[in-house]
Amino acid sequence: GTMADKAQLQEAIKTQGEVVRKLKSEKASKEKIDEEVAKLLQLKAQLGGDEGKHAFVLKTAKGTRDYNPKQMAIREKVFNIIISCFKRHGAETIDTPVFELKETLTGKYGEDSKLIYDLKDQGGELLSLRYDLTVPFARYLAMNKITNIKRYHIAKVYRRDNPAMTRGRYREFYQCDFDIAGQYDAMIADAECLKIVYEILNELDLGDFRIKVNDRRILDGMFAVCGVPDEKFRTICSTVDKLDKMAWEDVKKEMVNEKGLSEDVGDRIGEYVSMQGGQDLAERLLQDRKLSQNKQACAGLTDMKLLFSYLELFQVTDKVVFDLSLARGLDYYTGVIYEAILSQTIPALVSTPAEQNGADEAGVNVGSVAGGGRYDGLVGMFDPKGRKVPCVGVSIGIERIFSIMEQKAEASSEKVRTTETQVLVASAQKNLLEERLKLTNALWNEGIKAEVLYKKNPKLLSQLQHCEETGIPLVAILGEQELKDGVVKLRNVVSREEVDVPRADLVDEIKKRTL
Amino acid sequence: GTMADKAQLQEAIKTQGEVVRKLKSEKASKEKIDEEVAKLLQLKAQLGGDEGKHAFVLKTAKGTRDYNPKQMAIREKVFNIIISCFKRHGAETIDTPVFELKETLTGKYGEDSKLIYDLKDQGGELLSLRYDLTVPFARYLAMNKITNIKRYHIAKVYRRDNPAMTRGRYREFYQCDFDIAGQYDAMIADAECLKIVYEILNELDLGDFRIKVNDRRILDGMFAVCGVPDEKFRTICSTVDKLDKMAWEDVKKEMVNEKGLSEDVGDRIGEYVSMQGGQDLAERLLQDRKLSQNKQACAGLTDMKLLFSYLELFQVTDKVVFDLSLARGLDYYTGVIYEAILSQTIPALVSTPAEQNGADEAGVNVGSVAGGGRYDGLVGMFDPKGRKVPCVGVSIGIERIFSIMEQKAEASSEKVRTTETQVLVASAQKNLLEERLKLTNALWNEGIKAEVLYKKNPKLLSQLQHCEETGIPLVAILGEQELKDGVVKLRNVVSREEVDVPRADLVDEIKKRTL
Repeated sequence: GTMADKAQLQEAIKTQGEVVRKLKSEKASKEKIDEEVAKLLQLKAQLGGDEGKHAFVLKTAKGTRDYNPKQMAIREKVFNIIISCFKRHGAETIDTPVFELKETLTGKYGEDSKLIYDLKDQGGELLSLRYDLTVPFARYLAMNKITNIKRYHIAKVYRRDNPAMTRGRYREFYQCDFDIAGQYDAMIADAECLKIVYEILNELDLGDFRIKVNDRRILDGMFAVCGVPDEKFRTICSTVDKLDKMAWEDVKKEMVNEKGLSEDVGDRIGEYVSMQGGQDLAERLLQDRKLSQNKQACAGLTDMKLLFSYLELFQVTDKVVFDLSLARGLDYYTGVIYEAILSQTIPALVSTPAEQNGADEAGVNVGSVAGGGRYDGLVGMFDPKGRKVPCVGVSIGIERIFSIMEQKAEASSEKVRTTETQVLVASAQKNLLEERLKLTNALWNEGIKAEVLYKKNPKLLSQLQHCEETGIPLVAILGEQELKDGVVKLRNVVSREEVDVPRADLVDEIKKRTL
Repeated sequence: GTMADKAQLQEAIKTQGEVVRKLKSEKASKEKIDEEVAKLLQLKAQLGGDEGKHAFVLKTAKGTRDYNPKQMAIREKVFNIIISCFKRHGAETIDTPVFELKETLTGKYGEDSKLIYDLKDQGGELLSLRYDLTVPFARYLAMNKITNIKRYHIAKVYRRDNPAMTRGRYREFYQCDFDIAGQYDAMIADAECLKIVYEILNELDLGDFRIKVNDRRILDGMFAVCGVPDEKFRTICSTVDKLDKMAWEDVKKEMVNEKGLSEDVGDRIGEYVSMQGGQDLAERLLQDRKLSQNKQACAGLTDMKLLFSYLELFQVTDKVVFDLSLARGLDYYTGVIYEAILSQTIPALVSTPAEQNGADEAGVNVGSVAGGGRYDGLVGMFDPKGRKVPCVGVSIGIERIFSIMEQKAEASSEKVRTTETQVLVASAQKNLLEERLKLTNALWNEGIKAEVLYKKNPKLLSQLQHCEETGIPLVAILGEQELKDGVVKLRNVVSREEVDVPRADLVDEIKKRTL
């Protein structure tokens, strides 16, 4: 660049530097500051030379985040609960690549297709990052001609949304899916999926919750008998879907003013979608003068009755509600649909300014944490001969659960451990590195989780501090006297008690104390 | 399209159909056939109409694969061994997004940068799929100003290579990385990394192996004293790196003919790179008339001596070799480097034609399964002030290990279980679905892994068959008589023994029998 270019750039850097300083002094949100710092660094990079040498934009891609060790410890705990449940129900697991051929995803997500991440075409195939785990599962079944499987799949999926990350929503996020594929007798597998949601939400201890259940066929039948024209079923369905966020009056307004239904039709829908109940409601609606005339609705209601009889046997009816306002978005559902909602709202943390700035509301409503349903047609879309494989499944929305667990951990006085180390091998005296390494090695060989500081002569205090910071419960202390006596001084970090343990008994003693 | 276009397309479909049939009759490789079938389906899709309706190309992206439940069971076993080892050594874990800002990866991989997968720019940031876990780790440390951490990270990485998939190489593959970051006394952390490789390869039971060790500073010093000009260090280094695949004569030819070294210089290098040994070799080379004059080489050799003294304490010197021909590719190494090699070659499977066609050699050499080294400068490349964080780490190349384990499982008579189900709740009589569901529910609630067939009246034979196919060891059989007596008939699937167990004792009995 010319000298004039350079001068201009230096001026821009100065101005941008002032913007950043101003934001910092105003205690603006971390996000906002990061954004302006990034601009500053980019300007510096353009300037080149020494000033721009390290001018990386040091951040992760928009809508993504790193997991630090504490978050990983929580994530591991949540996954263990979920995987245990899936295994208790006899599921196997599979994995699929993070990207699929673009055409595999085409035509499966309706309007949401615009949120799919595409890869650059580099003279090969057109590829896209997976948007969910259901479509890859259906592709897998068709490709391998599998007609019966009960599988779970835990993996990241990708959506170019504009997420509110403070509510635990990201562009890269985990899904935990459990699905049962196969031609079986009605509602047994469907009931097991609901049982699984019930078990997982109970075990995660997230407070009270409800599971709403409905059926695509009941929705369609209801629209038909209310007088909605066939071609408007889908769009009215997506308006009804807003009932969890909007008042009925506004939903009706949208139906009448935007979607062109008559007031009458709207009112009739309104009567139905206000209904909630259990098996009794299904029975009552089977007697409903209008609804009982509709074949689709009758099939759905008969299955709903059967479903509730199984849910009774599975002892989960205290949380499950047959709710005619539930109308999930995805096109591929053909039968039962459901959604689990936590009752509590999570209060925004007020402890640190950064978090305060991150939360845009006083209380963050966590809302839906699991959902699913029956999709009997999806696998057939991939089969060259269109052979159908009936499927029913559930997806646990794990990121929101992580957010809640993190907030709980933050609020709790108990420290989250990020390692499982049982003992630190330490010394109070100098020149004992070799002895420390020898003992550590012996412990590793016996399966003990052991650490040693990577210093020749660390201070005892810094060794004890390491234990306190990371929660290591025991210290095995070596000194000249202990070596002579063939013992190790075993110290309890919390109680500070010390006891001499013969080397031969050390492994057993550590195991006993760290059960 | 016009009628003429259509006729042309139909002709092309006919021709392509013949290509596919010919390949099949010739028993061509599955890959080749799949490729031509894909072309055929694409042509059919172009034709449109009913014929093209389901003409999906039903496959995964090039160089990727699904994991079926059996492969997942093996993967889980391998991961458990590796993670246990990492945890035994006190490591925490982190996770990073699957994609990074493109500039984060720029300038880290030299020539290999062309293998990076870029995402399509959709009006936002330029993103790339991660190429390894080391660069994201360094970015994470710099971004969070972390100067001390011992962490592992197990995740998929992406390289647009042309892999020989029969050798267990893919474009999407797992890496298992363990790294120690921090300013510590020399060689202690380095020795622990080697101990970890030793433990993991031992526990995975993959046969004999060796771990080659060298040091970037020794290599550079060696090149200097042999008379290699400074600017040729790197390119000569990458020629030396080929010694594991090429004879010395050919390596020398490349140095002289292609890289322009004199015969003399080549011969001098040849003397050094043929040397292998342990601590003794390091000591001998410290006395070497020429090498001892070079500061870099002396520093490396002194550290090598120290490293071996720690390896002695860690009892791993039987597998570790100081090998002057080891010269790993990556630019960022600054000190010790190492690589683990399995001794055995894996015989290609001859059991199925598909697999036979897939293997292009009689024996597939598995080669390197782990590698790593010290990289003290990488984090500084991300730090705005260039602050250095010394790091040493190791990466386990898990895909090759999976391939070996799969082949072993295939060859073994023992069946790999893909579920952990302890008991199937069954019935020999009709109309007992509700009783089966009730009992299954009770078992789930007690933490027993239980399955029940999703049929109203399944045959006893098909229930027993399900157990035999999936390895479920126990069947809990309900009948009218058992219900009356308050017992369950517990059947051992293998021995076919049956015993009546009171309902109250059932859970304990199942636990006892499936320890």
